[in-house]
Amino acid sequence: MGGGYPAALESLIGELKQLPGVGRRGAERMALALLARPAAELEALGALIGTLPRTVGRCPRCGGLSEADAVCGICGDPRRDDSLLCVVENMPQLFAVEASGHFRGRYLVLGGKISPLDSENGEGLNLRGLCDSVEAGNVREVILALSSDVEGRATAVFLAELLEKYPVRVSRPALGLPAGANLSFADAATIGAALRGRVGVQD
Amino acid sequence: MGGGYPAALESLIGELKQLPGVGRRGAERMALALLARPAAELEALGALIGTLPRTVGRCPRCGGLSEADAVCGICGDPRRDDSLLCVVENMPQLFAVEASGHFRGRYLVLGGKISPLDSENGEGLNLRGLCDSVEAGNVREVILALSSDVEGRATAVFLAELLEKYPVRVSRPALGLPAGANLSFADAATIGAALRGRVGVQD
Repeated sequence: MGGGYPAALESLIGELKQLPGVGRRGAERMALALLARPAAELEALGALIGTLPRTVGRCPRCGGLSEADAVCGICGDPRRDDSLLCVVENMPQLFAVEASGHFRGRYLVLGGKISPLDSENGEGLNLRGLCDSVEAGNVREVILALSSDVEGRATAVFLAELLEKYPVRVSRPALGLPAGANLSFADAATIGAALRGRVGVQD
Repeated sequence: MGGGYPAALESLIGELKQLPGVGRRGAERMALALLARPAAELEALGALIGTLPRTVGRCPRCGGLSEADAVCGICGDPRRDDSLLCVVENMPQLFAVEASGHFRGRYLVLGGKISPLDSENGEGLNLRGLCDSVEAGNVREVILALSSDVEGRATAVFLAELLEKYPVRVSRPALGLPAGANLSFADAATIGAALRGRVGVQD
């Protein structure tokens, strides 16, 4: 120990510190909070983390997370609209779209974005899954729900070209002012996009 | 799954959310970051957490954390000053004092504070360890390095009474302005304490 935490606790702090948004202080507080838990709970949590690679898999249809490697709940739901395919970067974006309650189609999880500075060949992205989904037939429209940052736009351009050979509409979500936001807090690019995309007051 | 995370991931998010300073969003990001780790790393982390109760113990002398149940590094260090005993609430406070580099005595970890609204009998605190340390002989001064909040002050009063029967000086750290801080950011109570405890400019 020698003035520090016991070795096991120090290792845990080091591991926790690697998680996104966790600093040294936060990792210490988290490790001490864990230590205060009953042994049985810690064993259960340890087993949960240790078995993640086996308990969580990829849906063979959308490429999103699923139980082991079964088809995920969304892909397995017969009530979803097969004609709309929403392409998202990763699971957090999928859940953001899903939580909006405004989409009842299906998803395709790309697994990343294209960086214009690196290769632009889409290596590592789930392009095979995208083409398979579109070729399977029922899709009428592919919505590229990608971030509106540089990588997201580069990816959208790349995917639009990839999808040109299919008889599907390719769209993207509208740019504009965030709902409920004060216009004075919006940046110039957002205001510009909102003005260019202006619609009738009654719409 | 059904529109949510796979069961195992959802359980993990629930567990992470219980840690101090972690909200739902943070827990999701952390869980997804964990999922992206190699299986071997997750197994090691899982084992680390599951075995915490066995790998981390309490030092029988100061009551602080130690390897299993061995004497901790500070208590086992023969170069520390036996005549000074610093009473701290818990490990984070011990490390804060230790990190200051201004204390070379020994510690006693209370394991909590007394809430004046609850019982004032110090139940659950390491009072036995404190008395044992003082009775063991060499201690000349006990520094009550407790927080200066209501519970910390109540605990200090309680401990001072407990220690009255021993021939030791009982002290507490000075209250005053934080080092390097702008006086305009200090609260009235702190400024008041700093003025009452004022010292000569040359001190």
